[in-house]
Amino acid sequence: MSTVPALANIAEAAERIRSAIHRTPIMTCASLDEETGARAYFKCENFQRTGSFKFRGATNAVKNLSTADAAKGVATHSSGNHGAALAAAAKAEGITAKIVVPENAATIKQENILLHGAELIHCEPNLQARETKLDEVVAAAGCTVIPPYNHFDIISGQGTASLELFEDTDSLDHLIAPVGGGGLLSGAAICASESQPGIRVWGAEPEQADDAKKSLDAGRIIPANPNTIADGLQTSLGTLTFEVISKHVEDVLTVSETEIITAMQLVWHRLKIVIEPSAAVAVAALIAYPSIFSGQRVGIILTGGNVDLDKVATLFESP
Amino acid sequence: MSTVPALANIAEAAERIRSAIHRTPIMTCASLDEETGARAYFKCENFQRTGSFKFRGATNAVKNLSTADAAKGVATHSSGNHGAALAAAAKAEGITAKIVVPENAATIKQENILLHGAELIHCEPNLQARETKLDEVVAAAGCTVIPPYNHFDIISGQGTASLELFEDTDSLDHLIAPVGGGGLLSGAAICASESQPGIRVWGAEPEQADDAKKSLDAGRIIPANPNTIADGLQTSLGTLTFEVISKHVEDVLTVSETEIITAMQLVWHRLKIVIEPSAAVAVAALIAYPSIFSGQRVGIILTGGNVDLDKVATLFESP
Repeated sequence: MSTVPALANIAEAAERIRSAIHRTPIMTCASLDEETGARAYFKCENFQRTGSFKFRGATNAVKNLSTADAAKGVATHSSGNHGAALAAAAKAEGITAKIVVPENAATIKQENILLHGAELIHCEPNLQARETKLDEVVAAAGCTVIPPYNHFDIISGQGTASLELFEDTDSLDHLIAPVGGGGLLSGAAICASESQPGIRVWGAEPEQADDAKKSLDAGRIIPANPNTIADGLQTSLGTLTFEVISKHVEDVLTVSETEIITAMQLVWHRLKIVIEPSAAVAVAALIAYPSIFSGQRVGIILTGGNVDLDKVATLFESP
Repeated sequence: MSTVPALANIAEAAERIRSAIHRTPIMTCASLDEETGARAYFKCENFQRTGSFKFRGATNAVKNLSTADAAKGVATHSSGNHGAALAAAAKAEGITAKIVVPENAATIKQENILLHGAELIHCEPNLQARETKLDEVVAAAGCTVIPPYNHFDIISGQGTASLELFEDTDSLDHLIAPVGGGGLLSGAAICASESQPGIRVWGAEPEQADDAKKSLDAGRIIPANPNTIADGLQTSLGTLTFEVISKHVEDVLTVSETEIITAMQLVWHRLKIVIEPSAAVAVAALIAYPSIFSGQRVGIILTGGNVDLDKVATLFESP
């Protein structure tokens, strides 16, 4: 489908995936609130199965396949959380998943995909090679491609994180979600615009991967040229996500690499939970824009917790 | 009081501190269970106020002071979690706290005590100097000393963590708690022996700080000679905790430094939560003793999450 989903589709997705996903908790932190001056509600998708919200959309897409399509399996190209999520979602439904991965992808991410029982297919490390290899795989196996964000079922599935957040909190003034390809932010914006009158939805993005901000400003999709530690936010917007975000998102707030690392460290220290740099981008925006958020009730989606622990100290020493 | 508390005292403590503490969640982890072969229920005291279970006992002791004693404030010597916990517990009741700290204690821990509004008093870094300085402080201010573990109110307060764990789970076969001075383990053992027929309670201790194990074997308190990264488990048992543990604890299980680090890393990776090395000791015991725990339902108290993040990678590189 090339149309964008509505709140009703997100509600259907929530029903469809309910038994497969974790209903993740919402955390608050008094000492962090003292520092920011806001009252923050953290939706902890780092506790989601496979360690990120991506499991929601992947599960929704897999469960929505026809029996004939499911029998032929699914495929995608990914070196990150979507690959592991699709692998696990397919495994849970008893169907096969083939994940095309650049041969230089981090070992831990390749292991994560294998851990969830998918077939790993290597390609050369560039977008052209990825797409060519994926086309070959699909031609040979007749499987269905499940893209990472620009897809009706994926956006609907990711929207369920915000649906739960709104069910479990009262009258938020703002919602902040990180934006890479924009699936999560689109789901949040649709959900908010149809159910939360007066709420303002913000994207959060690294300064060094600010293609969504530039795209909104230009009124067209600007390709990403990323150089950031937030490895989940390196993709550009798609046609569907650009349409939704242009319409329903207040603005995209950008933060520096130092602000991302500081925010990540603060969450680890104060909330005692492990989040990845991409998740910290939304927290960094909360801290960096007190003129917007001070005195306000702010929902924040902590998108994931998949991080190479042995690289963390290096990050934490620099700021 | 020099007697040991009973379950009724733990229940009274739970009432007394209810509005001041967090009722911490219990987490489970399917992938970790697959590896250990057990079904583990983690009581997340890393999410407790001040980042450890120590806030329970400190709050119970402070709330149990007479009005006259409360007016004169409290004091202790501590370079770790008990100091921060007593500082915060006193602040919440509006009374003063004086914490004697060795002058070479980690900056982050001194900052944590100051953050919670206590007065920091330096001494030379040895036990004799600590006790002498504490005696001076008490003589001058007339305040009440709240010791870290060998105390009726402290043991009762720490026991509330196990009381909640038992309320929130069904028929556990085992409970594992780390043992340093033994306040937490004593509270757990009392609670279990009076309310959970058939459950077996285990202490967990670093091989390189195995004074509790040696004390149980010898039938008398053996002083600690610790050399471990589990900085919360370096103290020896006290008279009260030795009495309780000798009577009600199955045994103390020891684990190596490498096993502690591996367990800590596993929890960070899989549960996406930050725990300190002392908390990882109980998880390490779960992994190291499959002959006891495989196929069993095991409660584990994750005691705290206060860790210097910039030192973590160094730990995670070594195993």
